[in-house]
Amino acid sequence: MTLSLEAELRPYRERVERELRARLSVEGEEGPESVRRAMAHSLFAPGKRVRPLLAMLAHEAAGGDARGIDTIAAAIEMLHTYSLIHDDLPCMDDDDLRRGRPTCHVAYGEALALLAGDALLTRGLVLLGEAEGLPPERRIRLLRVIGRAIGTAGMIGGQSLDLAAEENPPRRIEEVEEIHLRKTGALLAASVLAGAVAAGAPPEAEERLALYGRRLGLAFQVADDLLDRAGAEEAAGKRLRKDEARGKATYPGLLGTERSRALAAELAAGAAEALPFDTKTNLLARLARFVVDRSG
Amino acid sequence: MTLSLEAELRPYRERVERELRARLSVEGEEGPESVRRAMAHSLFAPGKRVRPLLAMLAHEAAGGDARGIDTIAAAIEMLHTYSLIHDDLPCMDDDDLRRGRPTCHVAYGEALALLAGDALLTRGLVLLGEAEGLPPERRIRLLRVIGRAIGTAGMIGGQSLDLAAEENPPRRIEEVEEIHLRKTGALLAASVLAGAVAAGAPPEAEERLALYGRRLGLAFQVADDLLDRAGAEEAAGKRLRKDEARGKATYPGLLGTERSRALAAELAAGAAEALPFDTKTNLLARLARFVVDRSG
Repeated sequence: MTLSLEAELRPYRERVERELRARLSVEGEEGPESVRRAMAHSLFAPGKRVRPLLAMLAHEAAGGDARGIDTIAAAIEMLHTYSLIHDDLPCMDDDDLRRGRPTCHVAYGEALALLAGDALLTRGLVLLGEAEGLPPERRIRLLRVIGRAIGTAGMIGGQSLDLAAEENPPRRIEEVEEIHLRKTGALLAASVLAGAVAAGAPPEAEERLALYGRRLGLAFQVADDLLDRAGAEEAAGKRLRKDEARGKATYPGLLGTERSRALAAELAAGAAEALPFDTKTNLLARLARFVVDRSG
Repeated sequence: MTLSLEAELRPYRERVERELRARLSVEGEEGPESVRRAMAHSLFAPGKRVRPLLAMLAHEAAGGDARGIDTIAAAIEMLHTYSLIHDDLPCMDDDDLRRGRPTCHVAYGEALALLAGDALLTRGLVLLGEAEGLPPERRIRLLRVIGRAIGTAGMIGGQSLDLAAEENPPRRIEEVEEIHLRKTGALLAASVLAGAVAAGAPPEAEERLALYGRRLGLAFQVADDLLDRAGAEEAAGKRLRKDEARGKATYPGLLGTERSRALAAELAAGAAEALPFDTKTNLLARLARFVVDRSG
C-alpha cells in the first residue's frame, strides 16, 4: 500500500511554508507594514506550490542534501507569486480572484500590488544568493538559470507575446506552444533544473531532469487550458473561461477537448519517461501525472 | 587648469552606455521585440547616469581595476530605470514626461511598461552575478547590498511610505528624511558601496565611502525637491511642481527654499569630507557638488 501523493508531499510543502515565512523579510529590516501585508496576502493564499516542490524533489532525486534547497524553493515561489500579482493587474489580465482570494490589487489597491510584486521579484532573486551550504559559484548559476526563465527570454517574453496575440491571435499550434513555453513552461522547467544544479548533479542526470521539466511545463499548460474551459472556479480559486472570451489561443480551442486531454497525458508520460531510473524519482513521476489530472 | 567635470566624466559615461547596450539582452536570446523596445526607450533616454558613475568612481578610488565594474554600473542603471518606469505608471505618480521623453507607458501602453520595468529589474539583478573578474562571493555580496537598497528595506519601502504620506502628510523633517533615505538615498548610497565592495576595499575605506554615499544620497534628494519647486522642466526632462500639488512633504515645503539650499550644500560638503584623502577621490568630491548644483 502506498501513501497518497498528497500525504507524501505534505512534509515538503511544510518546509516551503516555513521557509517562506522566515525569508519574506530581510533579517531585521522588515520595511513598512503595508507592502509586507500585500506581499503576504498573495504569497500565503492557498497555492499548490508546484514549482518549489519540483525543485525540492529534483534536488533529492539528484542526491542533493543541502539545507539551502528550501531557500531556493521559497525564492522560486516568491518569483511565481510576483508574476501572478502583476499578471492580474488591471492593465494586464484584470483578474479579481486568485488562489481563492481577491487578487492583490483588489485587496490593497493597484499601487501597493505593483510594489508587492516588485518586492517579491527583488526578494526572490536576492534569496538565490543566500542559499546555505551551496558554493557561491553554484548560487550564481542558479541566479542565471532562474533569471533567464523569468526574463525576456522566458516568462516576461511570453507575457509580451501573449499581449501581441490578443490583437493577432495565432492560428498554428506551434505559435501557441511558443507562448506557453515561455510564459509558464520556462519557470516550471527551471525549477526542476534548479534542483539538479543545487544538488551538483552530473551532466547526464541534469539533462534528463531538465527534459522532464520541459515536458512537464508543457503538460501543465495544456492542463491549465483544459481547466480554464471546463473546470470549477471554486476548486481552481481563480476566474475561468476568460481566455477564449478574450480571443486567446488555447489548446482546446485549437485541438478540441479530447485531443488536448490526450496530449496532456502523453506529455506527462513523456516527462516521467525522461527521468533517470531511480526509486527517488518516483514522486516526480507521480507529480507529473497529478499536474495533468488536477482540478484546481 | 583642470578639465571641466563634464569632460572628465565623459569616458566613464561612454563605458556605461557601451555596457548597457551589450548587456540589455541575455546573449543570443533577445526576447520579443516589443518589450525590448520599451526597455530601450527608457534606458537610453538621456540620463545623468549618476548611480553608475558613483559605482565606477568609488571602485577606482578604492583601487579596483576589475573589468566587471562596468557590468555592475550597467546593472545599477537598469535597476534605477525600472524604478522610474514603475513610479511613472498611472497607479503611482502618473507622469507623462521623463528624461525628456514621453514616459514608457505613454509611449508603449501600461502593460508593456509594466513588463519593461519587470524585465529591467530582473536583468539588473541577474547581471550582478555576471560581473567579470570578480570572485563569486563578492558578486553574491553585491547582490545582497543592491538587493537590500531596492527592496522593502530601501526603495520599495520608501515608495510605500510615500503612498501612505499622501494620505497622511508627515509634519516632522525626520519623517521626510526617512522616506527619502529609503526611496532615493538607499540606491545612491549602495552604488558607492558597490564600487568599494567590487574593488575589495579594506573595511575602513569601505566605511568612509559608504558614509560619503549616505550623505550624498540625502543631498541629492534635497536638491531634487528644490528642483521640483524652482527648476525648468526642459532642463529636468520631467514634470515639475507636482510634489507640493499632491501634498507630498518636501524639504523646501518644510524648511523653506533658503534653508533647504544651505542644507544641500552642507550635506554635499559633508559627503566630500567623509572621503578617504586621496587624489583619486577628487572626482567623487566634485560629483557631490555637481549633484547639488545641477539644474536637471
